[in-house]
Formats: sequence, structure tokens, C-alpha cells
Amino acid sequence: MDAISVIRAKRDGGRLSDAQIDWIIDAYTRGEVAHEQMSALAMAIFLTGMDRAEIARWTAAMIASGERMDFSSLPRPTADKHSTGGVGDKITLPLAPLVAACGAAVPQLSGRGLGHTGGTLDKLESIPGWRASLSNDDMLDVLRSVGSVICAAGDGLAPADKKLYALRDVTGTVESIPLIASSIMSKKIAEGTGSLVLDVKVGSGAFMKDIDAARELATTMVGLGTDHGVRTTALLTDMATPLGLTAGNALEVRESVEVLAGGGPADVVELTLALAREMLDAAGLPDADPAKALADGTAMDHWRRMITAQGGDADASLPVAREQHIVTAESTGVLTRLDAYAVGVAAWRLGAGRARKEDPVQAGAGIEIHAKPGDQVTAGQPLLTLHTDTPAAFTYALEALDGATDYAPEGTAFTSKPIVLERIA
Amino acid sequence: MDAISVIRAKRDGGRLSDAQIDWIIDAYTRGEVAHEQMSALAMAIFLTGMDRAEIARWTAAMIASGERMDFSSLPRPTADKHSTGGVGDKITLPLAPLVAACGAAVPQLSGRGLGHTGGTLDKLESIPGWRASLSNDDMLDVLRSVGSVICAAGDGLAPADKKLYALRDVTGTVESIPLIASSIMSKKIAEGTGSLVLDVKVGSGAFMKDIDAARELATTMVGLGTDHGVRTTALLTDMATPLGLTAGNALEVRESVEVLAGGGPADVVELTLALAREMLDAAGLPDADPAKALADGTAMDHWRRMITAQGGDADASLPVAREQHIVTAESTGVLTRLDAYAVGVAAWRLGAGRARKEDPVQAGAGIEIHAKPGDQVTAGQPLLTLHTDTPAAFTYALEALDGATDYAPEGTAFTSKPIVLERIA
Repeated sequence: MDAISVIRAKRDGGRLSDAQIDWIIDAYTRGEVAHEQMSALAMAIFLTGMDRAEIARWTAAMIASGERMDFSSLPRPTADKHSTGGVGDKITLPLAPLVAACGAAVPQLSGRGLGHTGGTLDKLESIPGWRASLSNDDMLDVLRSVGSVICAAGDGLAPADKKLYALRDVTGTVESIPLIASSIMSKKIAEGTGSLVLDVKVGSGAFMKDIDAARELATTMVGLGTDHGVRTTALLTDMATPLGLTAGNALEVRESVEVLAGGGPADVVELTLALAREMLDAAGLPDADPAKALADGTAMDHWRRMITAQGGDADASLPVAREQHIVTAESTGVLTRLDAYAVGVAAWRLGAGRARKEDPVQAGAGIEIHAKPGDQVTAGQPLLTLHTDTPAAFTYALEALDGATDYAPEGTAFTSKPIVLERIA
Repeated sequence: MDAISVIRAKRDGGRLSDAQIDWIIDAYTRGEVAHEQMSALAMAIFLTGMDRAEIARWTAAMIASGERMDFSSLPRPTADKHSTGGVGDKITLPLAPLVAACGAAVPQLSGRGLGHTGGTLDKLESIPGWRASLSNDDMLDVLRSVGSVICAAGDGLAPADKKLYALRDVTGTVESIPLIASSIMSKKIAEGTGSLVLDVKVGSGAFMKDIDAARELATTMVGLGTDHGVRTTALLTDMATPLGLTAGNALEVRESVEVLAGGGPADVVELTLALAREMLDAAGLPDADPAKALADGTAMDHWRRMITAQGGDADASLPVAREQHIVTAESTGVLTRLDAYAVGVAAWRLGAGRARKEDPVQAGAGIEIHAKPGDQVTAGQPLLTLHTDTPAAFTYALEALDGATDYAPEGTAFTSKPIVLERIA
């Protein structure tokens, strides 16, 4: 077996055999297959695809490259959620303690942001004292005592995927359904959850810009999970406009706490509850009532215990950026579009995100949104407040926002899209 | 400008701008663009192509990555030849001194073999004392005194191509017309020749298996040469069966010397003369008579002077392999096929070629051919003699030769294909 023959087989439109897949994933993990060989193969897969059986084997080979976690000793059923990433997507923050409050165990291994979508760990790190890195034993302790934990995935899970993900990121081979599906599912299956709900974002702020591609990705991932004995469902959800009224790290923590306090923007509450119900159903707890757990403070109680268990001060004030700039509405009328991608790129440029893995993020940077599509606005009223510690970034953020809004004449009827577009099981 | 945006542009089927091409070739040469990024781009080019203007710019950028040689101080017109590589293709050896004997200057910068096709320098290095590496000054001296020189290209010519060629070799991105054409032509144009004849091989033993692809490659290269002011023509020539009666290093030198002595196999003589006439025409010497220079010994005289000028002993005995194995004809009748690729792979496995750039080659290893397609044979008569210093290689060589021959009943009419299939100017 050699790398060139595997690359050529895929390049020429063939399918890879199980033996070829097992060999190349293992040899790449061990460093026998070079980065430049794997990137050529990734591009060949990007352009010629893989069939369902190839994707399943590729995923299994990535799982086999590392350890698998085991939550069978926990007294509660486990439930996990994964989002393909969007702008203002802080849902994991209220969702994990909410589902724990309803009786499931939520082992939420999360990542950092790269590019225009934020990362859950970056958001939580804006809370003074909070630590993302836990040993496996500490993670299990928090899961037992609180019921939910949000932390960084250890290096032992699917190391082949870690290596390949970093490679794809610099070689223009990210947006491939076989590669995205196998990457997400290898990590989630190796994590050992019993059930999984996928939040597959669709729209300008998502990797998947159109619903057909999102549906294909969701169907592929649901099939992979099911084949590996994980009860898996997916919701396709709208990412044409940012979720909620904030994009940025501390800004999104603040909005998440509002939701846990029983308030918060309607779209964030709606999606949090929809995903909570999916997770609880999949975990075998269909009678749990997440709306009640939000209203009666038990979700907030779990949040505070979860943050505290990881060293965070749940009562501390959150960081605030040093500089603000207000963007006003250009027209009077109905705001019909606020582009998620533009807002995501602007927040990233303000310092909420990073260009390279090594870069730090600003805890206070980001964007507050004062009007959403469907809202009546008056020319000159505040539409967005931009926050940053580095005011030179305002220019670049404003460039990103150029053309991000549309308006219709006052009184025009506007029907918002639902947040949840489709359910795939 | 960044590598990912260039890769994505090509991946998504777009064309690269001049600025993108100039930047990525320069940045890759300097090491700013990583190997894994360039290999992803190479695979994207392999699968989505480049148009003529992109190939021209890509070639120009590779030329600009290094120095250009200048032969304008020579009193004779310069003529060069490039073969895309075949089995038993020793034509450069008799051709260079022959064309020099007819009045042109032939600066033949050559390479080593990799894979199943042999390399001109490997062949000449079987001559005791002969040195492939010359300084630019020494090379000009030999050109002035002898009229022809065959030596290794210096590191200064098209360094971007050297880097990219080595990368393509290990990433399954070799057989791409835009990448092959730009690689060959960047080196040849940087060498500074005034005219160039391309020998584009077609058939099982060539990179191009079918004539349409070969024609496209030839047309692309002739266009590139012409655009850069080099008088360029191409011959498409047959590589379904090995050229001549030998494949291997010292074996091919011996056959070349036979041609220079006025003998040698008819196909080698025919192709040598056809290419010589093309080169002399392109160099503005249409009245030269290469057949006469072969017959009257002036070509041989130039060969001896050329070998001597590079330290070689033109009278020394050539190395002979330690072990022989004879392959006999399976049937009585007309040999209708002797597969070039199979013979090339077998010679390679016997030690005439190398698997990796660092590997040595055996001077004496290779294959002698006792019958060619069209010849009448008797079952059991010697068909091939395999030569090697490492007899364990016989098994692997014989595996490669399995199925390499076809026979027709005695007396069946057989029409051989001409050596020169088409001319492109």
C-alpha cells in the first residue's frame, strides 16, 4: 500500500477500498503519509466525492486512530449536541445546563472559533477563572455532580481528525460534505455519547449556504451516528441572520445568562427549547419539560454550578471592550435583511475571532444588534453597536458590513422564516 | 493575497489571475506557501484544468523564479530537444553530437530517471569517468569547443519547477497537461535555447497513453515556446513498444554508439534523423545532411570529443551486469506486441531505474530485446535477455513482463506503425 496509489485511485474517480482507507488514516496519523500527500487526497475527495460506505469507513478509521470515552458508569442517559457553526450561536451555553436540569447527562466537548464563526470555549473563557481544559476524571466528576460539562476535547480522541482538520483548514478543503461529516461524527462517536442532536445551520452565516447541501450533510451524519449505535437526529436551522442580539464572546455569555434567567431574545429561546426537546427525546426522557426548567430557575442553578465547578466566577462582571462605534439604519422602513456572514466577519475583525489558531481573542469584542429582520426602523437610529479594544479594527469591520442590510418601505408585510427549517431522523 | 483564496478559486472552477499566479509561484519558491497548500492546488489544477493564458503565466512565473541562461555569445545557432520520456529512449545520446556535427550548438540539459522511464544522465554515467555536473562556464566551454553538451541542469534554472516537480511526484499530480507543459517549457525556456524540438511520446510506455492527450500536450507546449520567442515544433512519436533493442543504462549507450557508427536498429536511426532534421530546420540550417554525418563518422567524432570533454573515456569497456536470464517466445508465429510499459517496469525493477530520487542505479542492468513487433519467432527462441547485479530482481521483472507480448499465426500480415505519428508546429 502506498499513498500515491490511494491518491490516484480517488483522483481518477474510483472508490477507496476499506483497506486503503484504514491504511491511509493510520499511516497519516503516524506521520508515514506526509501532509502534502493527505492534502492532495483531501482535494481529490473534495472534487470527486466519497460514497456512503467510504464515508462510514473513513469515519470508523478516524475513531480507531485514538481512544473512545465511556460514560456507561453514569446513572443518567447521555445526550450531546453539535452545531455546524453560525454567527451569534451561543445555544450550547444555556442548552447544556438546561438539559442537565431535565435529567440527562450532557458531556459537551467543544472547540474554539476559527474564521467568522465563534467558538464555545472562547465565549466561556470570558468568564473570570473559567477553565476549558479538564482531565477525563475531572470531566466525569463535573458530569456526576452537575449533570453537564462544557470543556475542550482531549488530545486522545480521534487524533487523525485533529491532524486532518488542521490540514484542511490551510489547504482550501474544508467545505466538503464527506470530510465535514466524518470529522464531526468521528469526534462525537469517540466521545461516547448515547444520543446526539445535530444543529445543521443553513444560510449566509453557515458553511452550508443552501438547504439541499445542508440536508445532504445532515442525512450523512445521521446515518453515520445510527450505524455506530448513537441515537442521532438533526435539525436544519436558519443562519441567514445572526442568532439573538449579540455576536462576540462576553456579549454572548451575557445573552445566554438572560435566557437562563427566563428572558432573552425569542429566537435564542425557541432554538434552545427545540434542541433541548430533541436531546431529551433521544435520551429517553420525553416527559421532561425544558420550558419549565428555564422558567423556574433550575436551569440557571445548573449553569452556576457548572461554571463554578470549572473554576469560573458566575457572579463576576464580564469584560467590556474599550471602544464602541454605533452603526445607524440607512433608511426608514422595515429591515428585511441583516446578513449573518457580514456580521460574523465584522465581529471577527473587531477581535472576537482569530485568523490563526495561535491568535488570542478579545473577550469584550463583538457586535450588539438593535434591530432584526422584520423590525420597523427609522433612518439614523442605532442598528448595531460595534465593540473592540483595537479601534483601528472599526474600518475593517465597517467594510465587512457594507451591503449587509436591506430595507422595505414602512408598513411592508414581512414574514420571518422559522428558526427550525426541517427535522431529519 | 493568501494561499487559501488561490486554492479555493481554482478548486471552484475559476481561472487564476496573473497576480494570483505570480504570487503563489514566488511565495512557494520562498517557502511562504507550504508544500501541503501547493499540493492541494496542484490536485485542483489536475482536476479542473487551466486555460492557455493561465498556463502561459504559470510558465512565465516559474521561469522568473530563477536565472535564465544566455547563449547569444555562441557563433552557432542553438537547438535543443526534449522528450517526454519513454522506454529505450536513448535518442539524446546520438542526436546531440549529430546535430552539433551539422553546425548547430546543442545545449542539452538533462535529468535522471524516475519510475519506468530511464534518464539520459543515468545512461551516460555508465561511461567510466563521465561527469554530469558542469559549471555554467564549463558548459559554455564544451559547447564552444565541441558544439554539444549533455549535462545536469544547474539549481538556478526554474527553482519553482524543481520544487513543484518533486512535490507532484509524491502527491499523484504528475499526469496533468497544464502542469507537465509548464514544467517542461519553463526549464527549456530558462535554458535560453533559440529553437526547440519536442518529442512527445504516445503509447503504453509514455505518460500520454492516447494520441488526443499527446496532441493537446504538444500543442500547448509549442504555443508556450512560440509565445516566449523560441522556435518550437513537436513530433508525436510511437511509444507502444520500446525504442531500439535495449532498455537500460550501459546497454543503451552501447546501442547509441552503434548508431553513431552508422549501424544500430532502424527505428532508433529513423527517429534520430527525423529529430535532427527538425532541429536543424528550426536552427536555420535546412541544408545540413544528418544522414551523411552519421555515415561519414563526423557524428561519432563529435560524440567522442563530447564524452572526453566531460571526463569520460570513450574507449573504455562499459559495465556488464553480473547475472542474465533469458525470456523465450511463448508461441511460434508473428510477434504482434511487445509492451513498452511492461519492458520499462521490468528494466526498472532489474536495477536500471530508481524508486526514489536518492536511490543509485545499476549501470549494467536492463533488457536486451531479440525480436520486435513484426518479427517472425519460434516458440522457445530467446525473446529478451534480462540483466541485473541483483538476481532476486528477476522474479519481479518477470511479473512485470507477464502478458507483455501477443502473437499471431505464422505468415499473418503485420503493418508496423510509423515511428513519427504527427508533426505539430
